[in-house]
Amino acid sequence: MKLGLDISGGDFAPRANVLGAILALEQLPDDVELVLIGRENDITSILEEKGVKSDRISVVDAPDVITMEDHPTRAIPQKPNSSISVGFELLSQNKIDSFASTGNTGAMLVGSMYKVNAIPGVIRPCITSVLPTVNGGDSIILDVGANADCKPDVLYQFASLGSLYAKNVMNISDPRIGLLNIGEEEGKGNLLTQSAYKLMKESKDFNFIGNIEGRDLFTGKADVVVCDGFTGNVVLKQAEGMYTITRQLGIKDDYLERFNYENYGGTPILGVNSDVIIGHGISNDVAVKGMLCLAYDVAKSELTQKIKEAFK
Amino acid sequence: MKLGLDISGGDFAPRANVLGAILALEQLPDDVELVLIGRENDITSILEEKGVKSDRISVVDAPDVITMEDHPTRAIPQKPNSSISVGFELLSQNKIDSFASTGNTGAMLVGSMYKVNAIPGVIRPCITSVLPTVNGGDSIILDVGANADCKPDVLYQFASLGSLYAKNVMNISDPRIGLLNIGEEEGKGNLLTQSAYKLMKESKDFNFIGNIEGRDLFTGKADVVVCDGFTGNVVLKQAEGMYTITRQLGIKDDYLERFNYENYGGTPILGVNSDVIIGHGISNDVAVKGMLCLAYDVAKSELTQKIKEAFK
Repeated sequence: MKLGLDISGGDFAPRANVLGAILALEQLPDDVELVLIGRENDITSILEEKGVKSDRISVVDAPDVITMEDHPTRAIPQKPNSSISVGFELLSQNKIDSFASTGNTGAMLVGSMYKVNAIPGVIRPCITSVLPTVNGGDSIILDVGANADCKPDVLYQFASLGSLYAKNVMNISDPRIGLLNIGEEEGKGNLLTQSAYKLMKESKDFNFIGNIEGRDLFTGKADVVVCDGFTGNVVLKQAEGMYTITRQLGIKDDYLERFNYENYGGTPILGVNSDVIIGHGISNDVAVKGMLCLAYDVAKSELTQKIKEAFK
Repeated sequence: MKLGLDISGGDFAPRANVLGAILALEQLPDDVELVLIGRENDITSILEEKGVKSDRISVVDAPDVITMEDHPTRAIPQKPNSSISVGFELLSQNKIDSFASTGNTGAMLVGSMYKVNAIPGVIRPCITSVLPTVNGGDSIILDVGANADCKPDVLYQFASLGSLYAKNVMNISDPRIGLLNIGEEEGKGNLLTQSAYKLMKESKDFNFIGNIEGRDLFTGKADVVVCDGFTGNVVLKQAEGMYTITRQLGIKDDYLERFNYENYGGTPILGVNSDVIIGHGISNDVAVKGMLCLAYDVAKSELTQKIKEAFK
């Protein structure tokens, strides 16, 4: 298995990315190879400095960088020698099995949509995030920002995608799917959730448990929380903001510490033809390692293949 | 000034409501009278038990109760002798200056819309909630649930209503209005927030400072956070849920304690012709006292009159 990693993306590139790759190499099985994509000189000098020489690491030179200032839709055609463009090129040629980056999220989404494409039948690929639950488990929420406006059938598909992810990557046997809403009973909500509820309650594709409210996000009431990308993004950033505040206040608690992004590393883009993982722009080496471990878990689970079969 | 209080609403009625009224009486100025609306026998026996005899307290008998199970739109016509129905009747006859209840929120909204009516020019009245900020202040967010689906011009009006509330009740001289969104720059967001941004940035009615994200909800970046009622309700319940979890975990912190609903008591329905205040169903006596103090502040500020003038 070959996992591609963008070395030029993120706030602490290239150093944190190369160091993260070194950490991941120690943790991942021997048959996993890492393909580091970025400025070759930068990469080799950090590897040399750390005395790392492994035939499980290869380097692909990509001299250019897509920055956070680049326009997502224009960046890839305008910068064909950037690490993100080269990564998608390798992925579409099957020279890597997965591509992970902490760089420009918009460019990663655009690359996923136009270089590897949505799986036939998937209306809108989406991204997910982990919700640490107070009982010690993890739930996920999707979409968290790829699709600000959604139709009811799109929410229905998010439920299917989330259920497949929870089953195959998180090893939850019969994931409970909740619709994020502003009341528990059927009939509550805005026009979108009212319609989505009607579609979802008839589903044989997943185990729908009904509406869940904002206060249930962290209680583990649902394994998969479905919402439009606008609401999901607000939820995610509110949780991040609250975690940041508890840190500033010096509050130390094992549960709250689980909101530290370092623990998650990244999220796959669900519903595209190849494995694409995006990570937080502020990722340090531990977070990059986490992102690569997630890339491995996703590839090993054959999630993408299973989504293709489910949407046939 | 006469403040009406529903004695039959909420989980701990009638006792918590009467005790809250007694606490409020001690705190409010001498020219404030309280009108307690509910089962007369219940009320007088609690007052007697507490040895309270004051010409600042009067009782209006309302033998029936609108429960949480009653349908919001049907409850008021079906139960004309309920405390909520009688309260709105007194309010529409100007026999009280303000009506506060911790009972069925839906029925309170319906009563506000059909018994006291929206102020001419206000498309959709709304409800607001306090966001305690980490720097020690308070922001507000609106709408938090009265309007699940909103148009851009409705969000614009929420900004006006929130600005008037912040100025007149919270005494913030030039309130900063932020639009809750999923990116900071203009052009980010869903169709609703993209359009609302365009309307709001041209505004001379309030001081628009642009988009704010979920992570800024508790930093005091904006004094007034504007969003549709679906998003606002999720934000509010997520914050409540996180507060509950920190309590369960035994985390004690002065800032987090500010999320305790007891500190706020209630919220006015903004944009209707008379002062209506709704409180949390789980309100104890301290929360009921807080609701009455808020009712006093709102009435004293002449907010409703100022909204009428602004929307002329």
